[in-house]
Amino acid sequence: MSLKKLRESVCEANLELHRQRIVLYTWGNVSGIDRERGLIVIKPSGVAYEDLTPDKLVIVDLDNKVVEGDLNPSTDTKTHIVLYRAFPAIGGVAHTHSPHAVAWAQARREIPCLGTTHADYCFGPVPCTEPVSGEQVRRDYEAETGEQIVKRFAGLDPLAQPMVVVAGHGPFTWGKSAGDAVRNAVILEEIARIAAATLAIAPHAPALEDEILSYHYERKHGPGAWYGQKS
Amino acid sequence: MSLKKLRESVCEANLELHRQRIVLYTWGNVSGIDRERGLIVIKPSGVAYEDLTPDKLVIVDLDNKVVEGDLNPSTDTKTHIVLYRAFPAIGGVAHTHSPHAVAWAQARREIPCLGTTHADYCFGPVPCTEPVSGEQVRRDYEAETGEQIVKRFAGLDPLAQPMVVVAGHGPFTWGKSAGDAVRNAVILEEIARIAAATLAIAPHAPALEDEILSYHYERKHGPGAWYGQKS
Amino acid sequence: MSLKKLRESVCEANLELHRQRIVLYTWGNVSGIDRERGLIVIKPSGVAYEDLTPDKLVIVDLDNKVVEGDLNPSTDTKTHIVLYRAFPAIGGVAHTHSPHAVAWAQARREIPCLGTTHADYCFGPVPCTEPVSGEQVRRDYEAETGEQIVKRFAGLDPLAQPMVVVAGHGPFTWGKSAGDAVRNAVILEEIARIAAATLAIAPHAPALEDEILSYHYERKHGPGAWYGQKS
Amino acid sequence: MSLKKLRESVCEANLELHRQRIVLYTWGNVSGIDRERGLIVIKPSGVAYEDLTPDKLVIVDLDNKVVEGDLNPSTDTKTHIVLYRAFPAIGGVAHTHSPHAVAWAQARREIPCLGTTHADYCFGPVPCTEPVSGEQVRRDYEAETGEQIVKRFAGLDPLAQPMVVVAGHGPFTWGKSAGDAVRNAVILEEIARIAAATLAIAPHAPALEDEILSYHYERKHGPGAWYGQKS
Repeated sequence: MSLKKLRESVCEANLELHRQRIVLYTWGNVSGIDRERGLIVIKPSGVAYEDLTPDKLVIVDLDNKVVEGDLNPSTDTKTHIVLYRAFPAIGGVAHTHSPHAVAWAQARREIPCLGTTHADYCFGPVPCTEPVSGEQVRRDYEAETGEQIVKRFAGLDPLAQPMVVVAGHGPFTWGKSAGDAVRNAVILEEIARIAAATLAIAPHAPALEDEILSYHYERKHGPGAWYGQKS
Repeated sequence: MSLKKLRESVCEANLELHRQRIVLYTWGNVSGIDRERGLIVIKPSGVAYEDLTPDKLVIVDLDNKVVEGDLNPSTDTKTHIVLYRAFPAIGGVAHTHSPHAVAWAQARREIPCLGTTHADYCFGPVPCTEPVSGEQVRRDYEAETGEQIVKRFAGLDPLAQPMVVVAGHGPFTWGKSAGDAVRNAVILEEIARIAAATLAIAPHAPALEDEILSYHYERKHGPGAWYGQKS
Repeated sequence: MSLKKLRESVCEANLELHRQRIVLYTWGNVSGIDRERGLIVIKPSGVAYEDLTPDKLVIVDLDNKVVEGDLNPSTDTKTHIVLYRAFPAIGGVAHTHSPHAVAWAQARREIPCLGTTHADYCFGPVPCTEPVSGEQVRRDYEAETGEQIVKRFAGLDPLAQPMVVVAGHGPFTWGKSAGDAVRNAVILEEIARIAAATLAIAPHAPALEDEILSYHYERKHGPGAWYGQKS
Repeated sequence: MSLKKLRESVCEANLELHRQRIVLYTWGNVSGIDRERGLIVIKPSGVAYEDLTPDKLVIVDLDNKVVEGDLNPSTDTKTHIVLYRAFPAIGGVAHTHSPHAVAWAQARREIPCLGTTHADYCFGPVPCTEPVSGEQVRRDYEAETGEQIVKRFAGLDPLAQPMVVVAGHGPFTWGKSAGDAVRNAVILEEIARIAAATLAIAPHAPALEDEILSYHYERKHGPGAWYGQKS
């Protein structure tokens, strides 16, 4: 994919966040990576979605150096970079403050997998990180936010659980592309909402049985997935 | 009704799900049956609602053989078939992941009939099935999901309680037509939402009195129903 | 006001219910009365809001006899009539199944006056009736629903508390006109929602102080009200 | 800024309240001040947002004397005036009855700072005032509402915590301009909603760590803020 196409798809993914109404004002940012060139296309900081066009996106390299663009990149750029470095299989990252996902982040609880709606997109609970420590804040807050996520994913497959809530902060999601990352952000918000509604009715609702979890996940994402159409 | 008309009405019913905003992305599927021909018209798997047209729907028979259509039918097709076989009076089935109905499914609780809003459309609680067992998953997950519903409806009239929540999964609704099934899906979501809101205010809210339940249900659905206009 | 004008204003009030998105499908009905002629203009039963025009409204007298119109009047017409008979100051009545108001009705609790948002429109709690008894259901359900409301309002001023929740059923609201009744239906839904949200945060939140209640109510509705503009 | 421009920006800020759907009917008012002239431009009382144009706004001085305009100013004008007098750094004030902020006001609890979404806009909890006393109501209700806010902010920086909930009443927000005040009203509603959702999941969710609170706030509002673009 050319950088021009990547700019377009990352811009479109940012606008999709807005259209899905899970972000208020400029409370979200999406990036996509060109793995061959080692370049990340990311939303500029604080620009309204209505004003966002592909040429306003900023291109940075994996050392956080701006390669193209006159605007400042998202303040969360370093978090994106840490994720791209640690998770070689991902092609896009999204960060939002969608309300129900933030509620779980603020509750500092992982989101249990209570049903097939969740299992269809995330193989097991949505992990919750440890909070960023005072020392980490002083060292390099945005990078350390990424490090907390990476630490939490030790032993996990980031594409099988393509979402996390950062304690006291909010969600990050990812996927094979910027569009996938946004889709996962929207789905995480819905999963988070339904999980809270479930616990309000049944505080001790059990986790989904392993067999059903595996079946649903494999149906959509396994090597022999048969959901949808052959492309 | 010709198959062409059935295609159109099932397509319209699928689009209505989307318009009523109770499904996210492609999280729902609706079918209708031609009882004389023994043919079911159903949504193709994973196709966006924006792209759905009558000719894209798939026609399968009651043995799950595709009779017409180039696309794969919904992965939940076997569940629909089991319901059509077990409930001869129904003409349409809808499955969604509407959030409040899913919350009750994940809570694994039937939705109590707490008021007339519920009684107008469902004669008694909305049943909740047992979860599908590991053995059932291995045998034939989608068909067994239908079997769990059928088992739960032993002794019940599926047209008087045209809705169910499957434990750990979500709602299925049905009716005399695909359009009725969708209307019941929308109503179930509203009933589920109001029941949860009621219990949040009054955890021990009583069930609606039997006399009022019967009166409201009969007013709309009994042999001498007088709600609405003579058609 | 001519009957033609009354038809138009009652039609508009019904459509406003729909526009404010507090009713699903046909789950609401609004009427207005011509006190001189003793005639009530009311929504026909089960007609979709999209299809509602002034000429489709039905005119009944205070004995529930249809005076004009080819369609059946709302099944709740007798409830409206009882209210018009008992409360001579009111000119319009609205009934909905708006979700948060129904939740309080199903919880069978009056809505406490917890703040000025409530006090601006209802002078004290929103009353909750006793449930309609089995005997009342057998006698004349819709009329007896009205009687339960009237009984609950013994000693109360129906214009100062222009709203009620009927236990196990839902809200009725009223006002000087059909438009006022609908405005009160919308406000009741908002009050009900905020009261539930308040109790979720603080289960023992106190009632608004009497002095503030009186002040806010008088500011908008007292003989020397100074809210808004002189008309 | 000329008074004409101030009228336009205050009108636009009032309309933004409406567009953001945090006010029902006319349940909100926004003002802006011209500090040099000592004049406040404020919404007229009870005028629908659809009918609001810059020339309908009312201009009052800091003694609550109408200087320009044929309509009555908002009944809350005196509250605005008290805030402008006490907080010299602010240029705009907004008052709403947005539901989640009102729920906290009715719960009579400050909104704890549970995460970065909050920290980005309010440096610490959203304060809650004492209720206005009976004596204060009799003396001068609207002015005393302002006095309760001012009393609560003793020792606080009103621009660092540009929002408050008044016990039993609702939120007031402010900022450098009328537009900022409205933005803070919208953000307060979101913060209030997320905080309630958090406590529903984790009743003892901890406050955000001081280091992260400071970091996030400074990133957007400190002297060396680097969020957004250099203007």
